[in-house]
Amino acid sequence: MYNPPLKTVLIAISIIAVSISCKEQTSSETQSIEAGSVMPEQEASLIFTKGNKITNNNFVGTAYVSMLISADSLNQTYVGNVTFEPGARTNWHSHPSGQIILVVEGKGYYQEKGGPKRVLLKGDAIKCPPNVPHWHGASSDSEFIQLAISSSENGPTEWLEPVSEEEYNAKY
Amino acid sequence: MYNPPLKTVLIAISIIAVSISCKEQTSSETQSIEAGSVMPEQEASLIFTKGNKITNNNFVGTAYVSMLISADSLNQTYVGNVTFEPGARTNWHSHPSGQIILVVEGKGYYQEKGGPKRVLLKGDAIKCPPNVPHWHGASSDSEFIQLAISSSENGPTEWLEPVSEEEYNAKY
Repeated sequence: MYNPPLKTVLIAISIIAVSISCKEQTSSETQSIEAGSVMPEQEASLIFTKGNKITNNNFVGTAYVSMLISADSLNQTYVGNVTFEPGARTNWHSHPSGQIILVVEGKGYYQEKGGPKRVLLKGDAIKCPPNVPHWHGASSDSEFIQLAISSSENGPTEWLEPVSEEEYNAKY
Repeated sequence: MYNPPLKTVLIAISIIAVSISCKEQTSSETQSIEAGSVMPEQEASLIFTKGNKITNNNFVGTAYVSMLISADSLNQTYVGNVTFEPGARTNWHSHPSGQIILVVEGKGYYQEKGGPKRVLLKGDAIKCPPNVPHWHGASSDSEFIQLAISSSENGPTEWLEPVSEEEYNAKY
């Protein structure tokens, strides 16, 4: 009977162990991504720049905005990348030209006045009609990154009152 | 001198080998992402739906589009997620309301008539003025995923001639 040297046995066992371990890690990462959960910060923030912390009073909590595209005289559409830390949200507000929201990462909420609070996940797309008060922001346990597309054609955003704790915590 | 049993030695060596290997994999993945290169398909296609294969004659190569937001009477802005396989590109075309391109993944090109061919990478944002002929698509060695934002307000896209091989392969 062939008796392999100890060195060969050690190498073989190491290779098998590495294969099993790394395969499990990849599988676990894939499942995590498929479930729409938040990726680590260094990956989640990679697509569009995070920009600057928002310091006005139109938001509750900590949020960042990066203006990717500005309005100009030929095309008044503009695009911002907004990152909400867990629990952060806009105040109620409306856009005279409406707004489109595209979710890049995380879990957040969207609600139009009088309507239910909706959950938004990566890949979701929302079109909010002109002049309809609404709010959007992160869930309490997840960062939320979204592209906001609007137009300055009919005037600026109208900012309203903050979202109450009761509204924010409403069931969905 | 203490002489550990063979089993203990084997387990210790396996654990060390697994740690080193998986650490290297993570580091390599991070570098790859930071360099803006293409992630594996199952990760790259995760954010927005890929949609259907484009079968009209306005594209060269294989491309897919998913309409995320449609134009309506209140807001004529629409958004599509376009996935170009390596080498695929639009024909020359122009939009009467202009177009915004946001790069989600991969490496591609963008060129306005008379201008240089530009490289586009993840996170890049382009605003093409109304009625300016241009084309966009994937590089020859990378998939390219982009959001296209336009408006039907001033009429449909005007499609022009295909991008020649010479134009596509021009240096940048």
